[in-house]
Amino acid sequence: MTDIAFLGLGIMGSGMARNLLRAGHAVAGWNRTQRALPDDLAGMEIAGSPAAAASGRDRVVLCLTGPDAQRDVILGGDGVLEGVSEGAVVVDSTTTDPRLTQEIADAFAERGARYLDCPVFGSKNEAWEGRLDFVCGGDPEAFAAVKPLLETMAATVHYLGPSTAGASMKLVGNLLVAAQMVSLGEALALARKCGLDPDAVMGALDVTDFSSGLIRGVGRASLAGDFSPFFYLKHMLKDARLIEDYARSLAVSVPSTAVTAELFQGAVNQGLGDLNASGVHKLLYGLAGL
Amino acid sequence: MTDIAFLGLGIMGSGMARNLLRAGHAVAGWNRTQRALPDDLAGMEIAGSPAAAASGRDRVVLCLTGPDAQRDVILGGDGVLEGVSEGAVVVDSTTTDPRLTQEIADAFAERGARYLDCPVFGSKNEAWEGRLDFVCGGDPEAFAAVKPLLETMAATVHYLGPSTAGASMKLVGNLLVAAQMVSLGEALALARKCGLDPDAVMGALDVTDFSSGLIRGVGRASLAGDFSPFFYLKHMLKDARLIEDYARSLAVSVPSTAVTAELFQGAVNQGLGDLNASGVHKLLYGLAGL
Amino acid sequence: MTDIAFLGLGIMGSGMARNLLRAGHAVAGWNRTQRALPDDLAGMEIAGSPAAAASGRDRVVLCLTGPDAQRDVILGGDGVLEGVSEGAVVVDSTTTDPRLTQEIADAFAERGARYLDCPVFGSKNEAWEGRLDFVCGGDPEAFAAVKPLLETMAATVHYLGPSTAGASMKLVGNLLVAAQMVSLGEALALARKCGLDPDAVMGALDVTDFSSGLIRGVGRASLAGDFSPFFYLKHMLKDARLIEDYARSLAVSVPSTAVTAELFQGAVNQGLGDLNASGVHKLLYGLAGL
Amino acid sequence: MTDIAFLGLGIMGSGMARNLLRAGHAVAGWNRTQRALPDDLAGMEIAGSPAAAASGRDRVVLCLTGPDAQRDVILGGDGVLEGVSEGAVVVDSTTTDPRLTQEIADAFAERGARYLDCPVFGSKNEAWEGRLDFVCGGDPEAFAAVKPLLETMAATVHYLGPSTAGASMKLVGNLLVAAQMVSLGEALALARKCGLDPDAVMGALDVTDFSSGLIRGVGRASLAGDFSPFFYLKHMLKDARLIEDYARSLAVSVPSTAVTAELFQGAVNQGLGDLNASGVHKLLYGLAGL
Repeated sequence: MTDIAFLGLGIMGSGMARNLLRAGHAVAGWNRTQRALPDDLAGMEIAGSPAAAASGRDRVVLCLTGPDAQRDVILGGDGVLEGVSEGAVVVDSTTTDPRLTQEIADAFAERGARYLDCPVFGSKNEAWEGRLDFVCGGDPEAFAAVKPLLETMAATVHYLGPSTAGASMKLVGNLLVAAQMVSLGEALALARKCGLDPDAVMGALDVTDFSSGLIRGVGRASLAGDFSPFFYLKHMLKDARLIEDYARSLAVSVPSTAVTAELFQGAVNQGLGDLNASGVHKLLYGLAGL
Repeated sequence: MTDIAFLGLGIMGSGMARNLLRAGHAVAGWNRTQRALPDDLAGMEIAGSPAAAASGRDRVVLCLTGPDAQRDVILGGDGVLEGVSEGAVVVDSTTTDPRLTQEIADAFAERGARYLDCPVFGSKNEAWEGRLDFVCGGDPEAFAAVKPLLETMAATVHYLGPSTAGASMKLVGNLLVAAQMVSLGEALALARKCGLDPDAVMGALDVTDFSSGLIRGVGRASLAGDFSPFFYLKHMLKDARLIEDYARSLAVSVPSTAVTAELFQGAVNQGLGDLNASGVHKLLYGLAGL
Repeated sequence: MTDIAFLGLGIMGSGMARNLLRAGHAVAGWNRTQRALPDDLAGMEIAGSPAAAASGRDRVVLCLTGPDAQRDVILGGDGVLEGVSEGAVVVDSTTTDPRLTQEIADAFAERGARYLDCPVFGSKNEAWEGRLDFVCGGDPEAFAAVKPLLETMAATVHYLGPSTAGASMKLVGNLLVAAQMVSLGEALALARKCGLDPDAVMGALDVTDFSSGLIRGVGRASLAGDFSPFFYLKHMLKDARLIEDYARSLAVSVPSTAVTAELFQGAVNQGLGDLNASGVHKLLYGLAGL
Repeated sequence: MTDIAFLGLGIMGSGMARNLLRAGHAVAGWNRTQRALPDDLAGMEIAGSPAAAASGRDRVVLCLTGPDAQRDVILGGDGVLEGVSEGAVVVDSTTTDPRLTQEIADAFAERGARYLDCPVFGSKNEAWEGRLDFVCGGDPEAFAAVKPLLETMAATVHYLGPSTAGASMKLVGNLLVAAQMVSLGEALALARKCGLDPDAVMGALDVTDFSSGLIRGVGRASLAGDFSPFFYLKHMLKDARLIEDYARSLAVSVPSTAVTAELFQGAVNQGLGDLNASGVHKLLYGLAGL
């Protein structure tokens, strides 16, 4: 049994914390806003601040909304950095800019703690069911030390390399997600304009070499007019901008990703940000005259 | 045993014809150019013209390179249309513009024959191993009549609707292929610029919800610098233009597909057309300074 | 005084014909639809068909809506080609695909007539005031022979080279128009989001090295919410597609033009096609959340 | 005669400083690197630091390379902010992110100084000949106070509004420059592929409603294969990124600008950054197979 601080009890974080609790670990939780926690987290201790949560604990796990939250919760006043114990390993599953990852890793190193960037692929269901896929960067020994903890929350755990490798890998993957989301919208706009039957279209796509879980799930829902949030469009836009910023910092030219990001921006501006990321299809259907 | 004319004995068509032969059917083949046929087709009768091949046979199967070949082999002098028997069913697996599909279907209907547009997903290996996925449009009774024949060559057979539904479905799918090919190139350019390990990247991608057979296969080869042809880049460009033309004819706006197509064009202009479609990655790697 | 057939008495053509009449030429007009002609054209003889108009006349001038109209009026039954006299010079100001230009030029050459592709830059006002800019392709002697006639309708007359050079030049120029129209919309969306004063913005732009008559005129109107038609958005879309088709036929990759065209398509699909081409700004303002 | 500090004696700044000197003002100059100054600046006093230059002077003029230089020279140690006198007016002609402009303006206001954002349109020749176009933001009284000074360096001087209005206006204009540069490259690639004569093309473009000084100058040079630097491609990329960042901060979707920026990135990655901004045409000509 390990004594763990868990920062960020949103939809994803709650699920992850639950799985740590169920595995028998002691978890001290903290969330930026006071919110009713799910029953599964009933027995969890609540810390007064990120610093207090981290203080005296060997393991700190974070699941935040992005770079701004990281600056605040980790580097800010009463932040994790202030409370962290020497020798602790900090596991951060936040999707973020790898340049910030490096800055944070360096700050922890100065305190004698080790910081691993460990973003996840998967969303609510995978978080609750302990089926996330972790992509991790940082010190390999620190990684080895926390790998069993990660496995409590994971379907698979991948070590990518030194600090920022996990954060970078997450953006590499998200680039594919963003492209798949937009291209699916264009494909389905075309299918609808052709008058093809939605079930037949999805049935045919399902068996192809280029199909994916995303295409299967999102495609059917989109054709049924269902854009209920699973992963918010506004968050997809935020992630798309992270990809672009990072690509730019590495001088990578990404013409199709750039167009994709502008379409997400346009969709958010049309009030679709609180729909699922596939809400961008509503914009595309509109541009198709549907 | 059915008496079948088979037009178009290229890499794909040869494999398809072989599977018809192996199932015990009598096949009269024809190809535009005289080329040595694979041993598997040794016993096949060779017809002198498309008209001669079609003449007196109830089933005609085509596997051509595109619209130009269709106009020539089907509608041209000594073409299938001239020789087709009343009551015959013509199965055309060519990837083409659905507007031409309709024109051809109408022409066959005037002759008392029925024409099904049945393009396939899959390439060489799937053709030879009888594991293609057919997407079919046309008269449902004609479809029912030839379904067993199609199954001889297929992993799955999908009926999409009236004439053009199969051809349209093929373009809908190809739009996703084109986007996945280009976005994968941008993602891998980013991954390479980050210095991520190729095996680790592909290992992490493999388990995600947005992975696909295409991403798995093409990704590994691209990172290994292997662009040996599997599906020619020049053919991908041709298909991308078919998608755009058809989208345009239906007034569908496809911003990300449009950029994708221009990148394929640029890659072909840089002499990469005889590489695999993933050869577009070479252009993208260059634009990334790799 | 020359005896001239004039085909296509739309807004542009009426103005051009008027200037020919005013210069003292005899003009036999024809229009596809019967419409009340402006008083300025009162004295003009009306021909019963394109062939009849062309018949027995040394000079034929056309101003049609595009390739479809050309096929009909020139190559169709009772078309110009049927009536044209040996030795006649045909001047066609239609914006079209240069490949069709070549086909038409060849057809006239077989009849012993010469065909010049002479599209114009400028719109209604320039047509009526004889201030069009002609860009011409075809036989240089034929061009020299009709140059005085062109000057009656023109501010400037440019000889670009053999057949198709004028039609090609028109598309080259239109590519710049399309890009300027869309980029101006993005620039003004940004200016509006910044809260900049419209008059101050346009005053500053006016003096720059990159300003143009188009930017000055369209910019002020767009910021004032005025999209009254001057050159229809739906025609701009048609022209953008001509550019793309021609670029494609020459294997030119045009990434930014491709995006531009899709935005025009999207704007037309949102019902803006009968506004001015700057109506695409309404789409862009919407995508900006304005 | 006014006592003026001038920070940033690059190609542009040297010309501007010269015109202040010629108008009889006393100018204390400073440049980040020690470089031989043009003879025209021979009599200029050289200050030891930005703070020293600003100290005791009522007017400070800056011409820096971008946001990083601003942070360093203005906000850094021994920066302008440390030395600025109460009541001074600071005129900053740097092209930058308007969000930084606001931050700097606020910092000066706390010191009792006033900061005007006054970027310029024009380049080397205009700077040396006193023909720049200034677009200014900030306190209107401060603007009125320095307007005569600006006019010493300017063809025109525009007041756009409060702080950031000038910086914003500069980005609005640069968006049009970027688009015009790329679309001109696509247009000329098409013209070259058509085999059109360069002089005839430019002669025809010159008279159109959509032509501009930029198109005339850059077009001729590009067709002649002349990409000698006038405004560096690498700086155009930097500016394009400033536009994108600012558009993003205001949630403006800019699809065509996004593609344009990626093309500049690709061109810089191909080693063209030290050519003129029109060097992006070399990339586009390559993509066209030229």
